[in-house]
Amino acid sequence: MNLEPMQKAAVLIEALPYIQRFNRKIVVIKYGGSAMIDEELKKKVIQDVALLKLVGFKPIIVHGGGKEISRWVGKVGMEPHFINGLRVTDEPTMEIAEMVLNKVNKSLVQLVNELGIKAVGISGKDGMMLKCHKKYSGGQDIGYVGEIDQVDPELIHELLEKDFLPIICPIAYDDHFQSYNINADDAACAIARAVKAEKLAFLTDVEGVYRDFEDKDSLISEMEVEEAQEFVDSGSLGGGMLPKLQNCIDAIKNGVSRVHILDGRIPHCLLLEIFTDKGIGTAIYNSKEDERYYHG
Amino acid sequence: MNLEPMQKAAVLIEALPYIQRFNRKIVVIKYGGSAMIDEELKKKVIQDVALLKLVGFKPIIVHGGGKEISRWVGKVGMEPHFINGLRVTDEPTMEIAEMVLNKVNKSLVQLVNELGIKAVGISGKDGMMLKCHKKYSGGQDIGYVGEIDQVDPELIHELLEKDFLPIICPIAYDDHFQSYNINADDAACAIARAVKAEKLAFLTDVEGVYRDFEDKDSLISEMEVEEAQEFVDSGSLGGGMLPKLQNCIDAIKNGVSRVHILDGRIPHCLLLEIFTDKGIGTAIYNSKEDERYYHG
Amino acid sequence: MNLEPMQKAAVLIEALPYIQRFNRKIVVIKYGGSAMIDEELKKKVIQDVALLKLVGFKPIIVHGGGKEISRWVGKVGMEPHFINGLRVTDEPTMEIAEMVLNKVNKSLVQLVNELGIKAVGISGKDGMMLKCHKKYSGGQDIGYVGEIDQVDPELIHELLEKDFLPIICPIAYDDHFQSYNINADDAACAIARAVKAEKLAFLTDVEGVYRDFEDKDSLISEMEVEEAQEFVDSGSLGGGMLPKLQNCIDAIKNGVSRVHILDGRIPHCLLLEIFTDKGIGTAIYNSKEDERYYHG
Amino acid sequence: MNLEPMQKAAVLIEALPYIQRFNRKIVVIKYGGSAMIDEELKKKVIQDVALLKLVGFKPIIVHGGGKEISRWVGKVGMEPHFINGLRVTDEPTMEIAEMVLNKVNKSLVQLVNELGIKAVGISGKDGMMLKCHKKYSGGQDIGYVGEIDQVDPELIHELLEKDFLPIICPIAYDDHFQSYNINADDAACAIARAVKAEKLAFLTDVEGVYRDFEDKDSLISEMEVEEAQEFVDSGSLGGGMLPKLQNCIDAIKNGVSRVHILDGRIPHCLLLEIFTDKGIGTAIYNSKEDERYYHG
Amino acid sequence: MNLEPMQKAAVLIEALPYIQRFNRKIVVIKYGGSAMIDEELKKKVIQDVALLKLVGFKPIIVHGGGKEISRWVGKVGMEPHFINGLRVTDEPTMEIAEMVLNKVNKSLVQLVNELGIKAVGISGKDGMMLKCHKKYSGGQDIGYVGEIDQVDPELIHELLEKDFLPIICPIAYDDHFQSYNINADDAACAIARAVKAEKLAFLTDVEGVYRDFEDKDSLISEMEVEEAQEFVDSGSLGGGMLPKLQNCIDAIKNGVSRVHILDGRIPHCLLLEIFTDKGIGTAIYNSKEDERYYHG
Amino acid sequence: MNLEPMQKAAVLIEALPYIQRFNRKIVVIKYGGSAMIDEELKKKVIQDVALLKLVGFKPIIVHGGGKEISRWVGKVGMEPHFINGLRVTDEPTMEIAEMVLNKVNKSLVQLVNELGIKAVGISGKDGMMLKCHKKYSGGQDIGYVGEIDQVDPELIHELLEKDFLPIICPIAYDDHFQSYNINADDAACAIARAVKAEKLAFLTDVEGVYRDFEDKDSLISEMEVEEAQEFVDSGSLGGGMLPKLQNCIDAIKNGVSRVHILDGRIPHCLLLEIFTDKGIGTAIYNSKEDERYYHG
Repeated sequence: MNLEPMQKAAVLIEALPYIQRFNRKIVVIKYGGSAMIDEELKKKVIQDVALLKLVGFKPIIVHGGGKEISRWVGKVGMEPHFINGLRVTDEPTMEIAEMVLNKVNKSLVQLVNELGIKAVGISGKDGMMLKCHKKYSGGQDIGYVGEIDQVDPELIHELLEKDFLPIICPIAYDDHFQSYNINADDAACAIARAVKAEKLAFLTDVEGVYRDFEDKDSLISEMEVEEAQEFVDSGSLGGGMLPKLQNCIDAIKNGVSRVHILDGRIPHCLLLEIFTDKGIGTAIYNSKEDERYYHG
Repeated sequence: MNLEPMQKAAVLIEALPYIQRFNRKIVVIKYGGSAMIDEELKKKVIQDVALLKLVGFKPIIVHGGGKEISRWVGKVGMEPHFINGLRVTDEPTMEIAEMVLNKVNKSLVQLVNELGIKAVGISGKDGMMLKCHKKYSGGQDIGYVGEIDQVDPELIHELLEKDFLPIICPIAYDDHFQSYNINADDAACAIARAVKAEKLAFLTDVEGVYRDFEDKDSLISEMEVEEAQEFVDSGSLGGGMLPKLQNCIDAIKNGVSRVHILDGRIPHCLLLEIFTDKGIGTAIYNSKEDERYYHG
Repeated sequence: MNLEPMQKAAVLIEALPYIQRFNRKIVVIKYGGSAMIDEELKKKVIQDVALLKLVGFKPIIVHGGGKEISRWVGKVGMEPHFINGLRVTDEPTMEIAEMVLNKVNKSLVQLVNELGIKAVGISGKDGMMLKCHKKYSGGQDIGYVGEIDQVDPELIHELLEKDFLPIICPIAYDDHFQSYNINADDAACAIARAVKAEKLAFLTDVEGVYRDFEDKDSLISEMEVEEAQEFVDSGSLGGGMLPKLQNCIDAIKNGVSRVHILDGRIPHCLLLEIFTDKGIGTAIYNSKEDERYYHG
Repeated sequence: MNLEPMQKAAVLIEALPYIQRFNRKIVVIKYGGSAMIDEELKKKVIQDVALLKLVGFKPIIVHGGGKEISRWVGKVGMEPHFINGLRVTDEPTMEIAEMVLNKVNKSLVQLVNELGIKAVGISGKDGMMLKCHKKYSGGQDIGYVGEIDQVDPELIHELLEKDFLPIICPIAYDDHFQSYNINADDAACAIARAVKAEKLAFLTDVEGVYRDFEDKDSLISEMEVEEAQEFVDSGSLGGGMLPKLQNCIDAIKNGVSRVHILDGRIPHCLLLEIFTDKGIGTAIYNSKEDERYYHG
Repeated sequence: MNLEPMQKAAVLIEALPYIQRFNRKIVVIKYGGSAMIDEELKKKVIQDVALLKLVGFKPIIVHGGGKEISRWVGKVGMEPHFINGLRVTDEPTMEIAEMVLNKVNKSLVQLVNELGIKAVGISGKDGMMLKCHKKYSGGQDIGYVGEIDQVDPELIHELLEKDFLPIICPIAYDDHFQSYNINADDAACAIARAVKAEKLAFLTDVEGVYRDFEDKDSLISEMEVEEAQEFVDSGSLGGGMLPKLQNCIDAIKNGVSRVHILDGRIPHCLLLEIFTDKGIGTAIYNSKEDERYYHG
Repeated sequence: MNLEPMQKAAVLIEALPYIQRFNRKIVVIKYGGSAMIDEELKKKVIQDVALLKLVGFKPIIVHGGGKEISRWVGKVGMEPHFINGLRVTDEPTMEIAEMVLNKVNKSLVQLVNELGIKAVGISGKDGMMLKCHKKYSGGQDIGYVGEIDQVDPELIHELLEKDFLPIICPIAYDDHFQSYNINADDAACAIARAVKAEKLAFLTDVEGVYRDFEDKDSLISEMEVEEAQEFVDSGSLGGGMLPKLQNCIDAIKNGVSRVHILDGRIPHCLLLEIFTDKGIGTAIYNSKEDERYYHG
């Protein structure tokens, strides 16, 4: 990098107030999509998380693994089942899903370890962390897909307190100790609420939320939670963004101050959003809480 | 059970001195073999470990998963490779091994959870716990099979202190953060030494150590460590028992007081060995340490 | 004992849920009657209490000493005084009572010590634990017999926290620091409430509570506290059981979950009631609290 | 008291350096003799100890009870036995001794409580504090008279840490958990060593140590431990002072800095010795340790 | 001092209940006036504070420095400005004031250190302790004279907990981090409230509060806070005593139990007021709180 | 700043390993010279220190104030005295020096506070931190100029632990509690050794150490401590650099790992030296220690 020393100093000094503001605050990062497949991007995400940790944040990674699960389902020669276009997680599929998610989990542990930070990979069954019930899709049984009822944050808090970085895969257990697959966005959201995270960031494959999905210039940079709710209620939001945005709103209503929807395809998107004055992606925030931080 | 109340009381009272002796002591249980495959036996082993925990011991489970790995290697249609009769753990095999060991790990977590005890399943990569180097077999490269160099017990101690039950699968990492498969007996032994365990128990598929392998009446009930060493040196020990016995001896020389080789095919073998006056299986002990406990 | 190994294991496994349920819970044992005179029974009570402690309960013994006091009053050639059939505790009697209770107290300390558990014998004057006022019987002055006003549990909590087993004799002090004798049942009850005990067990010389005292087959095994109150109110209860049952009810209304009236003449009655599915004696319980433990 | 305000201030200021010097230091007070019988003196001793506690010392009282034991032995009509002029502590005598010592113990607890300080009365059996073996007198069996082998100071430290004032009566237990009577001077000395007391003070019925017992003007005010040892070795010391002085010397050789032999018949002797420039009685000191305090 | 030993003992015993009552309680001492100029008096004040600390109080000194500031303003040849007879603290004056107050502060640190107690001198800027806004006098700008808005007691509590003696000079900062001079009485009062002091003592140059300022025999020894408020409201109080008394009242209304107005010209006035039955000066007290201490 | 997002990310990522390496390590910064006079530079130094604190270092500032002292000596109309060309610190000069140093101290506290970090300004008298003896210059009495004998780091450690930033001015006390002025370089060095600092940085008015002072191209970027010692011994070092370099060497020999001589005239010199791969100024290091950090 051919920057002048003064330029370098300026970047570091620009980060100063952000570092100060979030000192010892918990940040939950939902890690998924392209950023999880491209090896270069993956490395940069892990570097970003490491930096967050080193400057005093307490990051938690919650990850999915959809594409890798599909790959392995195929590898063992299983036929996918669908109901209403939804994949059915029957028992053999669940077995594979759990194996694959744990594999992904431990490979992330390894990447964080490589940077000299001790990670610990756990699922929602460890420490009886995530309890759920079976979820139906339009009344249809779609197998071992669960909805979280309760989060026991004790294990996470222990790990954070002892300076480990928790990496969590979205498996939960029900009343009968059966394992269920959980949507990773939902898991990240439930965990953020339970640990009273300051921030929740979703790494996605879109640039953020558009006021008008057709108009690429209408990307929303910041939105108060009330505005976001109106937007959701208006019905103009399309596709996968709707549940994600509702998740963001719920998280804020439950005590998270700021939720970020970031484009995981941009290298170091996490760092840029958090440490520079002009972030990237869309941030939804609790106007009251935010004031406290940004003007208090 | 049609026992008289007084008989029940007598059993509980018989356990009194053993409970007292091992209060807050760490016990490492190497769990493998038949006891891991037969569902009824599995349930009983878990009950035994739960009881140990509840009466004040600090149990740690270290498990293998050899047969299940073989099953999955077949399932994905891979051809096993052998060198000098030893299975070669190439990269795809290692990937499967890690997935399967983590699957087994989380299924044990679930069984312990069912008894109301919070388990946490980890591998040697979590918290950078087990560091290793590549192992060669008679100079031959047999792939990702490692030998432990260093155990960082911090994560285990944290979990024990906070009353979680650690369940560990024998994966380690090397200097380049590559994952390796570790022999579960070796892992249990290294961990027992690092956490200064009081006891180390191996659940096996044999009744114990025989003075004369041909003579089923020659089962050794107790042996001082010096005697065990002579026995190993004499060369009269056959097959798989040799490295296991050497492992036991090393553990004792590194501070473990008593090592038990138990027949995992006997239901509740762990309970019977620990809580009753006439144990089962073979116990190797450090005569000096032992004296302190049994006669002091 | 000629039990099979499997039978022994079964007894231990049967105890598992009870051990788990009461882990780190405080149990107050009112120790008196025959179980205190017969040396064999005494030894078994102490073993039971030791086992409770070792498996993770926090037992507290509160004891009386009526018969021994009488013996010593005679020994020094004093004439007992009575008013309305009640013994009058005048100053010399009180002096003897305090000496004898402390003697009994220290002999129990010794018995517990013999089992390798550190006991500490205290009276209600130590640490200003039990404060009382003078009690009159039907308007008559019966001397230094007191009624507890206030329990300062600090010393008990310190001893429990540091793993000592507290043994308490029922002496209290009043506003002028005068010593008083306290009914041991009342003392046990007041202490159980003050330390928020989970259980309170009375070792008595009866089999339990009978629905019809004449009919030995009418022993009540379990009773909800409301039912017990109705029973007391009905006036059908005779003799010494009335105040004891009212004590039990008060204890439950003040936060103790379960109170047991046990037949101290049965060896290991404490163990059998607590660790086996089919207890002995009569248990009074708070139905709501109980549910939480037995079905939650 | 008709002192001028300035005179009062002067007394308080005179105490300043002594208070500072012994802040949070442990002081063991052997309480016996006249100061224990005269009610006025007793009250003043307790006031002194209370003041020591309030200004930051950590006092421990160790008491005897010889005269009261004799009174009770007579009261129950027992005949004293003697061997070589020494009273034999047979079983019934021991039983009475233990009762009486505990009675005295609890009455001291009460006196301290009256001043608003929480005392806890314990014997050497509590918390397995004092272990002993049987002592013979010139080869003669004199009954349950013991010599301390081992002091477990855990209970004392707990009580001190939680701001209770420990009051200890000299009963110990042997290998078979039999109770023994211990000489109170010996007990005080052993305890002072075990808890690493800064000071040990004996309240006696003499004015101190005389250089020449016949010459009342030869009272020694201060003596280095070496000088005291020479004095003992010279054989010129008479009667009961010899073992007491040897006890003092042993205490100093085991880490106590200063031992005081005070005349318990002088009101507030403890206060005057400790808080005024010109003490009373005889002080034996470790010259090296002393220097550190008085000139450093 | 030619006092008899018994007289000395009597003084110490007289102090006993006061020492006990204020054990570990915080006492704020506003130090100013003659007691700060006369070197002999200064030494005695420091001795008193040291004694308070050693017997278990937690003293905090808040001091002024008016006369020394005037001296230095003259020394550098500055002309004092006055508005309505009030000195104006312009920027150069503020610079000198801060320098001088810090000088005084460190000289007090030194005097306390000399008695073997570790003092730490701080201003209201350290640890962002005292925040203020500019104060106007009858609408007139009198420069950098502030009124305290907020006290952050964290630093004080840290120092007290670690056994340092805090010495505080009355400088505060405003929203723009500008330094302001604060009236030392006001600062002492605000700090006493923030740290929940038990006592607040003002060392002044008057004997106390007079019922009739003209009549030197009308000195008030004790006053309930309600009575003091009536006195203030009656308008009969003259001069500098009015704001001081109002300060005392405010302190009591905010949780301080007792406020003392002492004549700093009397040597050891602090000691005499606190440790003897018949104090000196005027004490204002919260009748309810006081009862708790003096009769409970 | 017109940098691209990726450029900004690159700077932050470049800092990652340095942040990690010095996490929770103590860094002592000797602050003096031009960087203390130019208001713009001053602001940047404080920003740098704040950033160090926020990313997990534990910085301590030690400052001088020579020029400001001279200014005030003049202001009060004092004549400077010199002996052998050295300024003599007589009593009035010392009084001014202490006032001025405390003024500078509190103004630095204020600047750090403005960035939202709680600073605490102390001198070596606070908490009895710096003890010294009088120093003579070539046998000549030059007044109250001291040499540090002993550092009591307790207060510094308390402040660091509670997250305050200590700012220290170089005043010490001697056996008679007299105040002395200390060379700020010496004070920084003594403190760095006492608190076992990882780094010690001198902000100076030179670019660093030159191999040949005449040749501006001969600036030494890094030097092992042995080489530095040889350089000093060679006698080729001129002027003020000699004692500074010797100080650096002593610090390293006493446990500091790396000492930096930085050009305080370069804005953000501290940040650039610590967080970028190509530092500025001269670093002296302990080759063994360094290895551990930079290659381990």
